[in-house]
Parts: sequence; structure tokens; C-alpha cells
Amino acid sequence: MSLSNLFYPKSVALIGASHDAGSVGNEIAKNLSTQGFRGELYFVNPKGGKLYGKKVLKNIQTLTHISLAIVAIPAPLVLDEVKQLILKGTKSIIVISAGFAESGNQNAQYKLATLCNQHNVSLIGPNCLGLLNPEIKLNASFAPIMPKAGTIAFVSQSGALCASVLDYAAYRDMGFSKFISVGNKAQIGEEELLEFLYTDPKTKIIAMYIEELEEAQILQKIAQKITKGKAHKPIVVLKSGKTKEGKKAAMSHTGALGGSDEAYDALFEQSGIIRANTIEELFDIVDCFEKNKPIKNNKVAVITNAGGPGVLTADALIQSGLKLATFASKTMQELKTFLPPAASIGNPVDILGDADSTRYKKTLEIILNDPSVSAVEIILTPQSMTEIRETALAIAALKKTSSKPIIASFMGHDLVEPGLVILNDKNVSTSTFPESAAKALSALSFFSKWQKTAIGKPTRANDVNAKIVRTVINANSTSSQKLLSTEDVFTILNAYKFPTLERHIIKSEVDLAKVTETFKNPLVLKIISPQINHKIDVGGVILNVDPKDAGAAYKNLISHIKKTVPNANITGVEVTKMLNEGLELILGVKTDPKLGKQILVGLGGTYAEVISDVSWGLAPLTTGDINRMIASLKVSKILSGYRGEAELSTASVIDCLSRLSQLICDFEQIAEVDINPLKVLPKGQGAFVLDARIAILGDKIRNNDED
Amino acid sequence: MSLSNLFYPKSVALIGASHDAGSVGNEIAKNLSTQGFRGELYFVNPKGGKLYGKKVLKNIQTLTHISLAIVAIPAPLVLDEVKQLILKGTKSIIVISAGFAESGNQNAQYKLATLCNQHNVSLIGPNCLGLLNPEIKLNASFAPIMPKAGTIAFVSQSGALCASVLDYAAYRDMGFSKFISVGNKAQIGEEELLEFLYTDPKTKIIAMYIEELEEAQILQKIAQKITKGKAHKPIVVLKSGKTKEGKKAAMSHTGALGGSDEAYDALFEQSGIIRANTIEELFDIVDCFEKNKPIKNNKVAVITNAGGPGVLTADALIQSGLKLATFASKTMQELKTFLPPAASIGNPVDILGDADSTRYKKTLEIILNDPSVSAVEIILTPQSMTEIRETALAIAALKKTSSKPIIASFMGHDLVEPGLVILNDKNVSTSTFPESAAKALSALSFFSKWQKTAIGKPTRANDVNAKIVRTVINANSTSSQKLLSTEDVFTILNAYKFPTLERHIIKSEVDLAKVTETFKNPLVLKIISPQINHKIDVGGVILNVDPKDAGAAYKNLISHIKKTVPNANITGVEVTKMLNEGLELILGVKTDPKLGKQILVGLGGTYAEVISDVSWGLAPLTTGDINRMIASLKVSKILSGYRGEAELSTASVIDCLSRLSQLICDFEQIAEVDINPLKVLPKGQGAFVLDARIAILGDKIRNNDED
Repeated sequence: MSLSNLFYPKSVALIGASHDAGSVGNEIAKNLSTQGFRGELYFVNPKGGKLYGKKVLKNIQTLTHISLAIVAIPAPLVLDEVKQLILKGTKSIIVISAGFAESGNQNAQYKLATLCNQHNVSLIGPNCLGLLNPEIKLNASFAPIMPKAGTIAFVSQSGALCASVLDYAAYRDMGFSKFISVGNKAQIGEEELLEFLYTDPKTKIIAMYIEELEEAQILQKIAQKITKGKAHKPIVVLKSGKTKEGKKAAMSHTGALGGSDEAYDALFEQSGIIRANTIEELFDIVDCFEKNKPIKNNKVAVITNAGGPGVLTADALIQSGLKLATFASKTMQELKTFLPPAASIGNPVDILGDADSTRYKKTLEIILNDPSVSAVEIILTPQSMTEIRETALAIAALKKTSSKPIIASFMGHDLVEPGLVILNDKNVSTSTFPESAAKALSALSFFSKWQKTAIGKPTRANDVNAKIVRTVINANSTSSQKLLSTEDVFTILNAYKFPTLERHIIKSEVDLAKVTETFKNPLVLKIISPQINHKIDVGGVILNVDPKDAGAAYKNLISHIKKTVPNANITGVEVTKMLNEGLELILGVKTDPKLGKQILVGLGGTYAEVISDVSWGLAPLTTGDINRMIASLKVSKILSGYRGEAELSTASVIDCLSRLSQLICDFEQIAEVDINPLKVLPKGQGAFVLDARIAILGDKIRNNDED
Repeated sequence: MSLSNLFYPKSVALIGASHDAGSVGNEIAKNLSTQGFRGELYFVNPKGGKLYGKKVLKNIQTLTHISLAIVAIPAPLVLDEVKQLILKGTKSIIVISAGFAESGNQNAQYKLATLCNQHNVSLIGPNCLGLLNPEIKLNASFAPIMPKAGTIAFVSQSGALCASVLDYAAYRDMGFSKFISVGNKAQIGEEELLEFLYTDPKTKIIAMYIEELEEAQILQKIAQKITKGKAHKPIVVLKSGKTKEGKKAAMSHTGALGGSDEAYDALFEQSGIIRANTIEELFDIVDCFEKNKPIKNNKVAVITNAGGPGVLTADALIQSGLKLATFASKTMQELKTFLPPAASIGNPVDILGDADSTRYKKTLEIILNDPSVSAVEIILTPQSMTEIRETALAIAALKKTSSKPIIASFMGHDLVEPGLVILNDKNVSTSTFPESAAKALSALSFFSKWQKTAIGKPTRANDVNAKIVRTVINANSTSSQKLLSTEDVFTILNAYKFPTLERHIIKSEVDLAKVTETFKNPLVLKIISPQINHKIDVGGVILNVDPKDAGAAYKNLISHIKKTVPNANITGVEVTKMLNEGLELILGVKTDPKLGKQILVGLGGTYAEVISDVSWGLAPLTTGDINRMIASLKVSKILSGYRGEAELSTASVIDCLSRLSQLICDFEQIAEVDINPLKVLPKGQGAFVLDARIAILGDKIRNNDED
């Protein structure tokens, strides 16, 4: 579906053009008539009359083959009107009107979308602010401001936020290629818009405000296409809305360790999307991308006329993951030739409070020529000798000659304003405070690194037996979510060739004696009962049992459980070898109702939730994803051999994560998995699943009542 | 020393009043003459002439008993001039001139301070911007702006930052009681200014920019006096400058776990000081304190005309440690009576995009009356129906009638500006973005909680034997820092009654056999050698040894160490009981060159540094400090009984921390301590120091070359 009729309409009709000042229908009419749009324009209102110098049509009878119709009439009338518009050959429609899915009227919204889909008509909304294309001065919205034309596309799930964004962007002199409020996304959503913006020649950067997404995999694929490769464009996202899921009792450790916000983080990381934490940060990052070429690496130089702010900037750069560049000795020598003796020629370069524009210019010129510097942050405080305008002009002139990113923080307000106006006008990124500039440079650095990272494909093991898993799952078919028995769990894990220890399931002391006589090393005894979910919590696990003492331990275990969990039906006791050494990890899966299956890896054991050293990915995982997940753990230091200890079998962890991803992608029904602990032994000795739990979905698909 | 002559001078003399426009001496002359100061004013310059309508004196001969002299002449001339001023009875002096300790001229600065101290003359500087007292229109600085009079005192270690702060504060319409650039602090520093501001009736809030402090304990005492009690005033600090210490090889786990920034955090927490992370945050917090009464608890209501920003605000509030208030059912009923059906009457209250000022007013009125609401954050986005000015007026009117804190985020720039002007003028806190408002409210909430917290005193155990410790330390007297032998460490710990296990030091297999025959349970063998610092790293510890197998284990241990650490002089092997159960903590001490001794508690064991779940305090610790430190650990959940496990002996951990604080305060020479692990057993069974290291200072005091 081409969206060109939406953004470049030859003719626009506004259905519901209103005579009431301040009403939505009147605001849109005003915006369409008075902001410079040069296409054909039609206003429709049964009352007729004249509006902004234009005759108002009483109905749409004469309007054929309109490129874009904007519908701003009460919700109950919308469907009929849209039908008529489609019959008349309308090519694209924006439904501004509220009163659809957001107020419980899913049915009307479904009908609206179906109608447009059937006739191949593009639809934005309902319940949205509309869209703007500053390039052709089209303001098909009720936002009062027409931004200047530029290279930023903004896509917002909140219409109301758009008003603030346009007002703030005007102050910062930021220009937009397209500006879209998506509303309820009955048909066109983020995915479709990203596809369009990918090839839109006017768009260089995509900024988004997101409350909730669906279909993570489709978005990931499109985003990867946009953020990688030759014609790559950065995508910067502000995402709101922490989930309430955490409040629900989770069936697994994995469930308790993360909500859907972690799923979004994983989605963004796997897609090369930059996440901003605040509205201000979103614009600082976007501004920095708009005005600068890519950054080579993370080495930044700071030039300042004030020591204190220089130190604050250095702190902020390092906290954002950047480094202070170490200057070449030539640079330092050149700086020495003209800077006063009290100046500091290290990094930050403190050119002192009496620095005039010439001192700023000479310093910046030398610093930009230093090959060890990849970007420059310039700090200016308005002191008595400071030449604010001239310094801004000097920076702007040098910016033109260099491909290195430059951000100027002119600190203050009214006094520095003339400088900021010059900088913004001449394409130099600015920030009022140095801290946000650091975050923007760090986004630039992330994006350059992302370009160099291979995405790769999920690897698939061929030695798995899907048939066995299918049999187990079918045998457990129920109507609601269900925890599988330990037997079934290990059958599944063994079918997918997860490394497990030899397990002896015994039902009596006599059985036990037969088993233990083959053991020389200590044992572990674990209770098996469908009623016992977390064995350790009820004292259902005895570690480090001497084979000689196994009989006594067995009796103790049974009598303890009979006392503490009297309703438990004890189906047996599991006997395995005790592994004393090694690192305990947790591998897990949970299912986000919107984004799908999330995979976790982290420090395991009893205290997994307390320590919470975990990282997440969205299935399916590529080797790149798995490496990123492991690398971001604190315990990755232990895996690679910590303080003289042996390096551990990281390869086995990678293999297990890959198999886990394959398993849950092969079997949609697997909703939650806890592999805890996965005991990771020294390199060459592998890793072993010591305990695991799996929950499967019932036949009824779970209600998405989490949100 | 009274500072009233500095801030309320009857007469002011400027030594170095210059005719050169733009020079420091000229700027100060202009500021003193043209900004409304009504005291006597004298300009001094050997050239004579006239300046800003005033005759310039050629020398100070006629100037007797001047309240305040400002000295802005080249550094080499300063000392003589100050001598003359003092002889003439000058009561206080600001030395603006640079060229003292900051350029290596410590000697001149020392002389300057000594001179002033001897004659009881107050001294600000040298190397500073000066000071302002807007109440009497005194601008004794070269900052170009006279801020409006108000209740904020600002103390800055960076002169250059002051220019930006004044410019930014003017834009935000913030008023100051006193404004001081402290420069090199030859005499008057933060401590003296805090003492003055404590009783200054014009000062309600103290804001500070700090690069480095000395004498943490003095500052802590003054700050506690200011932030607690009846006449309490909040202190908000921006601190820059992470230390480079971390780069140095640390001798201990504790050393690697924290730098001086953690010491500052501990100092601030123990003093009730609020730490801002950015300049913007500093002003948001100060503004919020200035315009609001104390907050009752952390329950906040959000009112918004835009869903998206409402969600962002809720996120930010929760991330800042605040809670969303749960409204009384009466509140919800009242809201329902007039809000449109599509409005959301939960919290955030979404009063919809077409909300006019009346709707804002009614909603705010009802919300303020709800007893479960302690503060309100109001969000406004500039939509077509939004009445920006009227809404601001309505909020300001209601603010007067309620003691609950209110912050208004009018999001945007030019469009919302008229509203912000009204709000600022009428004493309502504002922020452009909702995120920073949340941080400000959270500071308010912290400060209210701080008022209710008892500071307490360090407890001292009476059962300690300081004599034994003194003997050990004296016997180890050296010229450089030194790690004590394991024997000496345990002698010290036992003298201070730390709980330790019975230790058997054996030198031969025969010795071993005698010892082990008394043991029934497993043992631990540890190598003892002055050359082996981290025993575990070299395989110098064998756990879980069956007493029967002790002989073999002993032989293995000795031969292993002889192979891996051939230069180690093995002085014995320690044999103790093996404690299998329990949580391993680390307790530690490190010495910050400026702030003194820091005490650490955290998750211990081999992976202490990897997991890094630690918290810090500054010695001496009160019970309150210890409780705060333990409560802020993730593993505190394990101490209080995690998931069905037994509650652990937290009382023993508290006792050990208290003894550790007492020990290091009693013995200045103890520079670093690692107690790792402290094995914490179930409640009633105590905790035991299983291993520990202590480093003492040499006779030569360590060079402070860390920074």
C-alpha cells in the first residue's frame, strides 16, 4: 500500500469543517487554509456557509477521487461517511474522531478497518490528531503549529503529546519531514509508517513515542532494515508505560525477574533502536543525529571556559559510556603556544574565564585536527569577557570544515540565547546543559557501533527430536496454563539435547540402596510431587549426601515433606550426582502478551531474584543476541575466568540458550521455562541442567488481561 | 567570626577599580555603582580619575574602618595591600585575584590566610568571583547580573559556573538571599558559610556546587544541625569530579569496590543533604523547596490533559521512589459528576485534551481535598481548547488555599510561556518536563522522612581491649602501608570481640592429627604465608575436608602451594570448622584521602566484586547509619528470611559493623580492612569472621597523590 496520497495529496477534503471557533473541525479547517497548502481543498458540513474564505459544501456528492479525506465528525456517523467517501474513489482517509476501540467500541473500529482494507484505502486513526507534511505546508491536523521543513519524521502514539512536541521543537528550531499521530492504529501503525519512512527521501531520522507495540518480530525486521546497511537512518524511541504484570503472582523465577519493559529493551537492542528516557533526551539525541555525521568511536574532547562545568561534562561523558580522548603531543604543544599559562591543556581543555572567540576558535581548530579525537563538546559560560555571538560564529565556521560531531553547551538562558540562535541556524547541535549533550553523543557512538555489528541468523541444532516434545505437550493438553511434571520436563529437555545428569527416580528405600551402591561421590536427593513447585522452599532438596547415609537422608526427606506439605502426593525421589563446583545460572522464558517470548539468562540459584543480575532477549535469538546477553551480565567475568579461577564452559551456555530459543519457537505452547540452576563447569567439562520447570499454555489462548 | 561585614557592609572599597571596560576591576566597579547598593563606596586605583561618576582614590590612606574591601589587583601585590587594609581597620576582605594555590603558590595563600586570621578579619577567596547580597543590592563580584532577592543561598566552588547559574536563575525567576563564590577557600569555606546561613533569616534553602571537600565530620555536624530540628533548612548539592583512585591497584576487595564518590554519597546521606545529579535538577529541586511546604509522605496525584505524558509522569514518579496515591471513593464520585465520560478518574486523572481552565480547577480542588493525596503534579499540553493563562491562574489560586506541594509541568515552549510566567510569579513550582518534577517531589519526600529519622550516636562496646591492639600495631610500625599477618589480624579482631571460630594453627602432619581427632564435622584448611594475600586465588583454601582425610588434604595443600607460589614462606596451616550454611557478607574499611574512613557492607565471598551489592557509610557509624546501610542492600531480603528460609542473625551483623567502626576510630593507623566472609547464620546462631585482612598506615603519613 502506497502512503503517498496521505502525505502528498493533490486534493484534500475535510468532512466536519466546523464554524465553531476552537472546535477540532474548525482548527483543522484553519490549518488547511492558512498555512500555505497549495493543493485542492474542500470543506464539507451540512450547514454549508463559508469558512476561511472558502465555500463549505453541504455533502460529498461532487467530490470524486479525492487524494485525502479528513473525517472529524461524531463517531456514530463515521462509518457511513467513510463508505460514501470510498464509493467516490477517495484514496486515503484520516479519521480524527474519537469513540472507537479506546472507549470500548472495538466493533466499529474493526468495521472501519475492514472497509478500508477491502478497498485498498489507506487509513490513519481513528482517535488521532492527524498528520503534517511541512515540505508541502500540509497541516492535516488540529495541532496549531506548522513546524519548519526538515529531516526528522515524528510518529506518536499520543496525539496530545504532539502539541507539546511541536511547541518545543519550534523553540529549538527543529525541522520535520513528516509528523504523524497514529491514534488507535486501526490499519496503519508503526510498521507501515516505518516502511514508508525508510524510502522517504526527505526523512533522515525517525523519532517515535510509543506506549505499546504488537508484533515485535515484524517491527524488529523493519527496524533492522532501516538502521543497518547503506541507506541507514537512526530510530530514536521514547517508550512509556511500565507494565503492571509484576504485581501478579508469577509462576516462575523468570516471571518475577522481568516485566514487559525488559522485553521492549530487548526488542530495541536487537533492532538497533535508540531508547531515550525523557522527552528532552529524545530531542537532544535527534538534534545531534540531524546535525552531525557519524562518530568514529567514543573518544570525546571537551573545551570549556569554566573548570567546574568542564568536570561535570567529563563525568557525564564517562557515565554515558564515552571516553575522554587522550591528545596527541603535537596537539598539546600547539595549544601551549597561545593559551595562557594558567589554562589546562589536558582534556577537558580549560581555556579560562577570559577566553574570547579567537581563543575558542584556535583551540577548536587544533582539537578537531587531532586524529585521536572523534567528537568535541564545547562548554561556554557567559562571563564578562565572553564573546557569545562571535564564539558561536567561529564554532559554526569550523563545523563546516570538519566531519567530526560537535555539540555546543552554552550554559544559561537570556545571555547565551543570541549564541544559541546562531548555532541552531548554522547547523550546530546545542544543549543548555552539558549532561544531555553527553547522552546524545553516546547515542551517536552506539549507532556507529551498531553499523559494524553483524545481525546473523538463529542457529538450529539438527539433533533434536520434536516428535517426543509434541507427544508430551499433547498429553498435557488442558484448558488453562499448566506446569509440567518433572518427568515431562526432563523428557522435553533430553529430546532437545540439553545436557542433564543421569537421574535415578526411586520409589522406595530398597530401590535407593541399589542405586547408591554404584555411587562413590556425594548425592543430591530431591522430592518429586506434582503439588510441590519450588522444592527448595519446602525443604524438598538434600544436598551433599554421602552414599552411605543415603537411606537415612531418604527417610528424613519423606517424613519432613509429609509433615510440612501434608497434601503433597509424593511420586518419588530423584537421585543425582552432586556437583559441588561451578557457577549456577538461570535460563528462562516468559511470554509477553504483546511482544511474544522473552528469554532470560542470569545468575541463578536460590538468590537469583535477590541479586537480579540478568539480561533479556526476544525469541528467536541469533548468536549475536546471545553474545550480547551474556556480555551484559556481571557474572560474565566469572565465565571468562575470574581472579585465577578456571575459565568456564561459556560455549555450553551459548548452546543451551540457542536450544532454548529453538525449543520455544518450535512449540508455541511453551509459555514459561525456568532452568535453574544450569551448573556451568570449567571449560571442556560442559554445563548441566540440575533442575527445570516448564509451563504450557492451555488450549484456550490466554486472556491479555495483564494490561 | 561574624560574617555580617561581608554580607551587610556599611562601606565598601574596591582596590583595583579599573578604567578598562571589560576588565574584572571595571566590571566590579560597575556592579557596585549601578545596581542599587546604598552604602558608602570607594574606588582605589593609583591612576586616580573618575569611574561611574565617582572619584577614584589613588591609595587607601584615607580609608579607615571599611566594612568590606574587594581586592582585584595582580597577585604579587595582594599581600601588601591586604596588610595595609588590615592596619586601617578593614573588617572583611574578598580577594578576587587569581595566582595563589591554584597555580602552585600555596605559600602566598597561606600567608594571606594567616594574616587575616591573626587580625580576626573575614576572608573570601582568593581566586573567586566575589559575592552578592540581593537584599541590599550588593554585587561585590564581576558577575553581570543582579538576581532578584529571595530565599535561596547559593555557594559555589566554581566561579565560572556562577555566571551561568545567575543567567539561568533569572529566566526561572528565582530569588537569592546570598550568592557566594568561595574560590580557594584560604579561610572561609563551606563550613563557615553553612554556619552563617543556618541563622541567616533571609535564607530558607541552601544550594551548593562542590568539587572537593575536606573535614567530612565537621561538615556532617553542621549539615545535620541545619537539616534537622525546628529551624531546619534543606541543603541541595551538585557534586562533580569522580576520583581517579579506582585506577590504582587496590590492596583489598573493599578498595576495589568504591572510590571517593561513594564516600561523598555516604556523607550526604548521613547529613540529610540532597544530591542533585545535574544543574537542571539542582534548580528544579531548589525551586520545589522554595515554593512548597513539606510533603506528608510519598503519595502523589497526577492531573493531565494528555494521556501519554500522564503515563510518562507516572513512570517517572515511581522511578523516583514515589507512589501514585489511591483516591478515596468520594474523590472518584465527585470527579465523575463533572468530568466527561471518556475521562480517566484513576490516578493519573486524564481530564482530556479539550480541558478548559474550569475543568482543571474543579479537578485540582477535589484532588487537593483527598486526604490520601500528599502532593499533585499537573501536566498541561497546549492543545486548541487549552486555556493556558487561565489554567495557570486557577492553579495559583488553589495553591494558596492548600498546604500540599504542587508542581505544574506546562509542556512546550513559546505557547506555554505565558502560563509559566504566571505560575513562577505566583509561587507555583514549574518544570518544562514532568520527569524532573518527579525528582524534585522525591527530594521533598526524602527531606520529610529525614526529619523523622533519629540521628543517634555511635554505640561503643565496653568489652574491647585496646591495649592488645595498640601492641600489635606498634610492633608492626613501618614507614609505608603494610598488610598485617593473619595472626595479628585475628589478635586484633579477638581483642575487639569480633565473633571468630576456634582456629588451630598447625605446622606439621603430627600436629594436624592431634587437632583433627577432636573434630566430627568437616574442616577447612587454609594456607598461612606472608607472601599470600588472596588465599583463594592461589588455591590456598580447601573446604569441606572430612576429618579422616585431613592428612591427605594437608599434604596436597602444601605441595600445591610449593608448586604454584614457590617463593611463599609457608608459616603454617589454619584448621577451622567448616560452616556450610549461612550467608557470606563482606565488611570493609578504606580511607579516603580527604573524607576519611569509609565503611562498607555487602554481599561477600569470592564474587563480592563481581556482584557489587554494597553500601557505604562514613566512620563513626551510628545505629541509624548501620540500619540504612543494611537496608539498602539487595541481600537484606536474605537476612530477613527469604522464601521460606530462616531469618538470619542481622543483630550480629549490626554488632560487627559497630565494632568495626569503633576499632578504626580508636586506631587512626588502620587504613584498610577486609572481613570476607563474615558468615551469617540463622537467627540466634550469630555470625563468624572466617577470614580477614587489615592494612595499617606507615609512620609517614600517606601522600595524598591520589587526586
